[in-house]
Amino acid sequence: MTATARPPATARSLGTAATAATIAALGFAVGLAGDACHVASGTTQYEWDGVPTIWRSAIWFPLMLTSAIVLAAWLAHRLDLPTTRVRTRADVVAGAAAVLALYALTAALRGEPTTVSVTLTAALAVLIWQWWDPGPGALIVGLGAAVAGPLVEIGVVAAGAASYADDSDGLAGVAPWLPCLYFAAGAVASGLWRAVSEPPASRGR
Amino acid sequence: MTATARPPATARSLGTAATAATIAALGFAVGLAGDACHVASGTTQYEWDGVPTIWRSAIWFPLMLTSAIVLAAWLAHRLDLPTTRVRTRADVVAGAAAVLALYALTAALRGEPTTVSVTLTAALAVLIWQWWDPGPGALIVGLGAAVAGPLVEIGVVAAGAASYADDSDGLAGVAPWLPCLYFAAGAVASGLWRAVSEPPASRGR
Amino acid sequence: MTATARPPATARSLGTAATAATIAALGFAVGLAGDACHVASGTTQYEWDGVPTIWRSAIWFPLMLTSAIVLAAWLAHRLDLPTTRVRTRADVVAGAAAVLALYALTAALRGEPTTVSVTLTAALAVLIWQWWDPGPGALIVGLGAAVAGPLVEIGVVAAGAASYADDSDGLAGVAPWLPCLYFAAGAVASGLWRAVSEPPASRGR
Repeated sequence: MTATARPPATARSLGTAATAATIAALGFAVGLAGDACHVASGTTQYEWDGVPTIWRSAIWFPLMLTSAIVLAAWLAHRLDLPTTRVRTRADVVAGAAAVLALYALTAALRGEPTTVSVTLTAALAVLIWQWWDPGPGALIVGLGAAVAGPLVEIGVVAAGAASYADDSDGLAGVAPWLPCLYFAAGAVASGLWRAVSEPPASRGR
Repeated sequence: MTATARPPATARSLGTAATAATIAALGFAVGLAGDACHVASGTTQYEWDGVPTIWRSAIWFPLMLTSAIVLAAWLAHRLDLPTTRVRTRADVVAGAAAVLALYALTAALRGEPTTVSVTLTAALAVLIWQWWDPGPGALIVGLGAAVAGPLVEIGVVAAGAASYADDSDGLAGVAPWLPCLYFAAGAVASGLWRAVSEPPASRGR
Repeated sequence: MTATARPPATARSLGTAATAATIAALGFAVGLAGDACHVASGTTQYEWDGVPTIWRSAIWFPLMLTSAIVLAAWLAHRLDLPTTRVRTRADVVAGAAAVLALYALTAALRGEPTTVSVTLTAALAVLIWQWWDPGPGALIVGLGAAVAGPLVEIGVVAAGAASYADDSDGLAGVAPWLPCLYFAAGAVASGLWRAVSEPPASRGR
């Protein structure tokens, strides 16, 4: 490569809009598939008629999750939270797959005692955080998500828009393992903006 | 080490026959244990009497899986498919364990809604691919396996040699998550030939 | 850093007592949460009345596990067993989370056929070993734990202090997957002493 050579198209940085759109597409796909699992297992149920649905979700829910994940990724980037492990575009698929696997697992755990489902979900969420970026930045975003996400869902349930099954509503109407799932999603969301926007070349090596 | 020193026995390359035999032994062990899980959970059932069985399998099934895994590993090697992450002998046990864990998990997921079992199996299969070798070579072998494997099993079911349980036969007689399981096995099979045949020393460092 | 600069407090080595205490605290937490899962799922049951309990455990059980994990970690260190992958303080949380996840999973697998639960637990235990430290040192400690742990629990059951459920007592009164769980815990225990006692700086780069 000569000094004047331009990097190949795939090695260019993405702008703000393209980065946000990519993260939104990813978040929408994971949220849609994960929520379909919760509806299929009967863990959650939508209560309002006449709302457009997509797959098994009322349209507003995956949109809400998508907004949250884009916001979390953008905030972590803007606040310049420290990263311990730099993630690149090549890692984004694995990060999304890990969160989706945990999401689907919580559906499969329906009917398990709360102690079992919370301990297993929590241990796996910690493992996802430690694997994705075992530092304080991801921890902070994860903890923020673990508080904010369930609070919003508690509001959704209180408003009567959706409900958790009788055996899965022990945390003020939402599932007791819900903070663990949001923690994992938040931990992966941190570092996602940079991973998506920067070219793989900046990974070094 | 002097220029004339020979590498220790463990650091030698394996020939074609020894490599194929090693992969076959590994594939046979994983196939046998995984299939035993499916029979134990009632996910699958053998329909022909008088066929010799080994553990819980009709002898032809683990042999078929073994041939497929050796063929996939050899083809990926001969076609010189690109690898993103070079795997060595030291990694082979982990690769086999990951595929076997997913195999056994599909047995444990019997009775789950299709949405849940397919989403969870798919997410974990993508994770295995991304971990083992997150590149296009492993993707191609995985996708090939995800098409060919279930097609062969659909033929086996149509021939009446085996059957899937009523709650697990939604994909033309086989389980809807079956392509995901074959995808993970195929992804790991790619790169297996080189990992087994080359001495660990070629790993560098 | 000048030649006379002292390392920051977090970069100091821990002494024997502090290392043992840290490992004990970790082992106690994992043992307590894991055992709570087994009691919650009905996998195990305590039979003696009048023994102080903590969470869902009779006090002596997590203490026994704690002693075992400290002893295993110390022995592996004193015997200077070879390590393939050097683990540091930063890895300890992930190691504990992995063992706890497997512990909780065995509770969730209650009711599964023995073939399924043992195959899945064994494959994941091998994966944990291969990830934590894929060498002979961790293998030896894991195998030692896989023999000693279940033997002690068989003694506990024979003494009438605790029992496994009727569908989970196929190994002389204890669960058939119990050696796999102890294997994973033992594999992680190896290398734990050094990981906890040495400053992260010694990890190099």
